[in-house]
Amino acid sequence: MNFNVSLKRVVDDSYDIEIGYSLCDALVSDLSAGLCGSRKRLAVITDDTVEKLYAGEMMQKLADAGFAPELFVIPSGEKSKTRQMKEFLEDSMLEKGFRRDCAVIALGGGVVTDLAGFTAGTFGRGVPFVNYATTLLAAADASVGGKTAVDTPLATNLIGLFNQPKKVYIDIGTWKTLPKQQLSSGLAETIKHGCLGDKELFEYLEKNIEKVFDCDKDVCEYISQHNCEVKYKVVMQDEKESGLREVLNLGHTVGRAIETVSDYKLLHGQAVAIGLCAQARLGESLGFISQENVRRVEDLCERAQLPVRIPDYIDREKLLDKLYTDKKVRDGKLRFVFQKEIGEMMCFGENEYGKQITREQIAEILREM
Amino acid sequence: MNFNVSLKRVVDDSYDIEIGYSLCDALVSDLSAGLCGSRKRLAVITDDTVEKLYAGEMMQKLADAGFAPELFVIPSGEKSKTRQMKEFLEDSMLEKGFRRDCAVIALGGGVVTDLAGFTAGTFGRGVPFVNYATTLLAAADASVGGKTAVDTPLATNLIGLFNQPKKVYIDIGTWKTLPKQQLSSGLAETIKHGCLGDKELFEYLEKNIEKVFDCDKDVCEYISQHNCEVKYKVVMQDEKESGLREVLNLGHTVGRAIETVSDYKLLHGQAVAIGLCAQARLGESLGFISQENVRRVEDLCERAQLPVRIPDYIDREKLLDKLYTDKKVRDGKLRFVFQKEIGEMMCFGENEYGKQITREQIAEILREM
Repeated sequence: MNFNVSLKRVVDDSYDIEIGYSLCDALVSDLSAGLCGSRKRLAVITDDTVEKLYAGEMMQKLADAGFAPELFVIPSGEKSKTRQMKEFLEDSMLEKGFRRDCAVIALGGGVVTDLAGFTAGTFGRGVPFVNYATTLLAAADASVGGKTAVDTPLATNLIGLFNQPKKVYIDIGTWKTLPKQQLSSGLAETIKHGCLGDKELFEYLEKNIEKVFDCDKDVCEYISQHNCEVKYKVVMQDEKESGLREVLNLGHTVGRAIETVSDYKLLHGQAVAIGLCAQARLGESLGFISQENVRRVEDLCERAQLPVRIPDYIDREKLLDKLYTDKKVRDGKLRFVFQKEIGEMMCFGENEYGKQITREQIAEILREM
Repeated sequence: MNFNVSLKRVVDDSYDIEIGYSLCDALVSDLSAGLCGSRKRLAVITDDTVEKLYAGEMMQKLADAGFAPELFVIPSGEKSKTRQMKEFLEDSMLEKGFRRDCAVIALGGGVVTDLAGFTAGTFGRGVPFVNYATTLLAAADASVGGKTAVDTPLATNLIGLFNQPKKVYIDIGTWKTLPKQQLSSGLAETIKHGCLGDKELFEYLEKNIEKVFDCDKDVCEYISQHNCEVKYKVVMQDEKESGLREVLNLGHTVGRAIETVSDYKLLHGQAVAIGLCAQARLGESLGFISQENVRRVEDLCERAQLPVRIPDYIDREKLLDKLYTDKKVRDGKLRFVFQKEIGEMMCFGENEYGKQITREQIAEILREM
């Protein structure tokens, strides 16, 4: 006997990204206008660095507008992206009486938005959330795509959800309080976007990259917008990462492995920069990119004060092994995506952007770096 | 500056429920026909009771058909529905080399399907799963609706996901190995469905309920189908539980609280039976149901060998307090849904099935029970 459960429907997860300076008032006014329905209980999730800088103003303004916000603070850094920290947030929210009629505001960088977005996605089987991004990395990487996740001892970003925020705020004004190496880390994802899909952005960076460190308004707005555009272009065409979306992993196969093997001494963007250079060099040996363009990628990374070589303290064999635990590994075979010169991706068949690489091929490149 | 991320699309989560005897071959043939795409790596999740009875055959048949199945076993019982057990499953799967190219098969009752469905929903940001239900409770409660969740010390079912399976198999043949009180527990949800939306089912149960204990084929098929139909009718009209779906909580406000306060000495269905009787009595005092129909509900529960009174070891004050930590509590106010005589629900306004109840009102009913 068969019974059919028919569940076909139109889902609209569309949202706005607002790019500007000091967007706290905009957030409060959006919430008052019903961005998260009539929900008054707000869990503001942040880390202990951002807390000192920006949480006070936000909490005050939310309370003044008639909301009932509570602040939940995690330690800063990638090491907070764990199931245990998610559990800590859930238990803290439950203890404060939060139930399904709440909303979550993620105030911080990529770690906070990843963790808070995942937490919101399973709290009461899903409550709405907004991202208030305070770093270039979060602006570049976490604003578009709806990816949320935590790390486990065996793999980064493997446990998580596709969960779209109700709105993203990119507050460029907060970048001035970022340590220089955090800005650099964010620039790595920006350079990646130039490499994989935006030659104009890449050339703009070649002219202006130093101005990001001065928080030049025009430059910061330009790169924020282009970051969103590149990611959007890719994600729109492939929301569930079946094919095209894989190109966003440019530099990330080696990057993620180095990040883990360095025990997070390297920031995500620093590791990605090394990964970008690794795929470029490997791509050169396979004829996908000219030697000159490899130099341009390396130069841009160096001007962004990013590493382009593997630090000496990284054990090359351990790094090679780690590559094989990556979540993108299929049937135990290593796959890489490659840029095609500057601003395009290599395509190896319909919806096929990954290419199988042998351990020996990548080992040779890593030995030289 | 604003950037719009446009994510409107058609989602089709439709699936089939197959009701019958020994459906293992059907499962294998569906998988071979592409039910979960071309995925060969299968995580079969079960509990240590079901493992001994049915896992061997399934593993063998899957392997014979060319799949690569691995078995993951959790201890039986509601106490396994925790974040820690989800973590255990994730770590075990990662250790065995499972990545995003796998699928999950939940083999067991409601605890297994809830936990496995939630685990599948966040593993690699979501892999497909199927439910092979081996209990009446799972057939009645967990087959339709897509609700998956775990319990936390502060609340049951509050952390989870809406996640639809690719298919559900209701193997009535497995009911013969169920302990009698497990069958009773499943009957509680069946009686609930009769009370809230299917007078015909309720009257059929009044004629035939004892035959369920003999695993009478016609009776078991009849109630399986009607369980699916009632739940489907409700869920279809309200997939995100904004209004109508609340009616499925009939008896569950008190039920969930008793289940927790009993420290799970009471099975879910036993607790729900007490909850059903509690809302009926409270409904009688409010004029929603006649004294005679309250008796019919109680009689049916008793014939299903379910408790209709609160056991003496339950502390009434603790139970009252527990009611207020329920996930359905809004702004600290207790809400109940009520049946209207037999087979219909009370409606208190457009999409408004919940009614606010004072602590004193429910306290009085609980004192008498």
